[in-house]
Amino acid sequence: MSDAIRFLKGHGTENDFVLLPDPDGALGQPSSTLVRALCDRRAGLGADGVMRVVRTTATDDPAAHASRDRAEWFMDYLNADGSTSQMCGNGIRVFAEHLRAEGLIDVSEPLAVATRGGVRTLTWDGAAFVVDMGRPVVADERTWVEVDGHQWSATHVSMGNPHAVAFVDDLAEAGSLLEPPAHDAGVYPDGVNVEFVVRRGERHVAMRVHERGSGETRSCGTGACAAMVASAVADGRGPGSSYVVDVPGGRLEVTWTPDGRVLLSGPAVLVAEGYWFDGR
Amino acid sequence: MSDAIRFLKGHGTENDFVLLPDPDGALGQPSSTLVRALCDRRAGLGADGVMRVVRTTATDDPAAHASRDRAEWFMDYLNADGSTSQMCGNGIRVFAEHLRAEGLIDVSEPLAVATRGGVRTLTWDGAAFVVDMGRPVVADERTWVEVDGHQWSATHVSMGNPHAVAFVDDLAEAGSLLEPPAHDAGVYPDGVNVEFVVRRGERHVAMRVHERGSGETRSCGTGACAAMVASAVADGRGPGSSYVVDVPGGRLEVTWTPDGRVLLSGPAVLVAEGYWFDGR
Repeated sequence: MSDAIRFLKGHGTENDFVLLPDPDGALGQPSSTLVRALCDRRAGLGADGVMRVVRTTATDDPAAHASRDRAEWFMDYLNADGSTSQMCGNGIRVFAEHLRAEGLIDVSEPLAVATRGGVRTLTWDGAAFVVDMGRPVVADERTWVEVDGHQWSATHVSMGNPHAVAFVDDLAEAGSLLEPPAHDAGVYPDGVNVEFVVRRGERHVAMRVHERGSGETRSCGTGACAAMVASAVADGRGPGSSYVVDVPGGRLEVTWTPDGRVLLSGPAVLVAEGYWFDGR
Repeated sequence: MSDAIRFLKGHGTENDFVLLPDPDGALGQPSSTLVRALCDRRAGLGADGVMRVVRTTATDDPAAHASRDRAEWFMDYLNADGSTSQMCGNGIRVFAEHLRAEGLIDVSEPLAVATRGGVRTLTWDGAAFVVDMGRPVVADERTWVEVDGHQWSATHVSMGNPHAVAFVDDLAEAGSLLEPPAHDAGVYPDGVNVEFVVRRGERHVAMRVHERGSGETRSCGTGACAAMVASAVADGRGPGSSYVVDVPGGRLEVTWTPDGRVLLSGPAVLVAEGYWFDGR
């Protein structure tokens, strides 16, 4: 079995991942060929991305190296196409759940995880991990998005990555979303993640998301945060409030703290573990 | 780990399966809830179907029971929605490859496998399994299929299940195939599998397939057989010929023997094995 690679599969609100435990760096960063093979939904295991779980002291990745004094673990996130990624709000909860299930962390303490987007801190609330997603920036000026000739006013929110949040009366209004919604290329020269949001009740919204580069997805952690922030602003609440955000793949909870940080909480499920027959 | 279920994942020309080894029947037939969870492409492992691998003497399934004197192993095939299925020409090769990899069969002998469609015989040619798919029936009268107002004449072939095979100049002619092609409801009261076939060379065709109940798929074993039979008839060859049939997920080889049986050969790949955390 020397040619087999240990893996786990898991998901957070149906954003799914293959985890490769590599605590001491013996595996090394997976090649893009391996990542694409693992993520292939027919010929592989199928996933939105791969997360190698490695100690910051066991890899020379610059992001891990720079965070060695603050974080024991590095989330080496690779997109399904083999490219590297900075951070994933659903993935990091699954990453933390794996460390918890293996007894590798003490959940009574905050968990610092190094990512290419910087160190993120998670706390275990007794039932789920809560991720500190940082501070949002809400633009003063409104922007717009357009699908099939139907245009909506949108709130421009940055969660580190750009979002345009449009309120709709019905999520079906956005249509099939097979193409990226049109947007203001002056505001978003590199494209934008678009959230269509409908109100479900008091501090409760539901959304669909079109992720730049990926298309419509079952869930998007930063998208849920952006949708919450735009909703809280629209509702005249701002920081110091919590919302339930329903995504197609499940339910997330987002809190905007009084000091302006956004906390994301939601399920993280490991469904299987095993060995990948690499090159067999 | 008492609540974990052993699995393997594999595919044949990208028709993919979760295998549940259950030689002595301890697991029993998986519930439809379990099958749906395993086959879920986001929240599970993802597959077109589940195959429980069980001895015919270790299950009370009527099809297995009736075949105990002729076959040691029963392919307990369950569709992704949890319903049972008769046979799968791509699946049975992966099923056999699993038995071979585990050393449970002697590949120098023909392998009889019980299925709900009857006992099927496979032979190992040194590199791949060859499945005896039975005798095709080609209708004397032609039928038709239609997509987006474009109609093609089609050959009606039964491989146990019904097929309409249409020859096209370019596989793109069939369009997006998001809907089932229109067909003669008098000929096909229960729907039909439709193959669009283009010639690639001497005894070499390529096809796209719309499977009844599933939509367009990466591969269909009986569809490849039907496409080969229709091609051999159209080419004036008939029984006693072999064709290469390219499907979106890979390459199959189909032989129509002089005595009128159809043999299907192609890849069968096991990519991973592990444990499913049932109910965890």
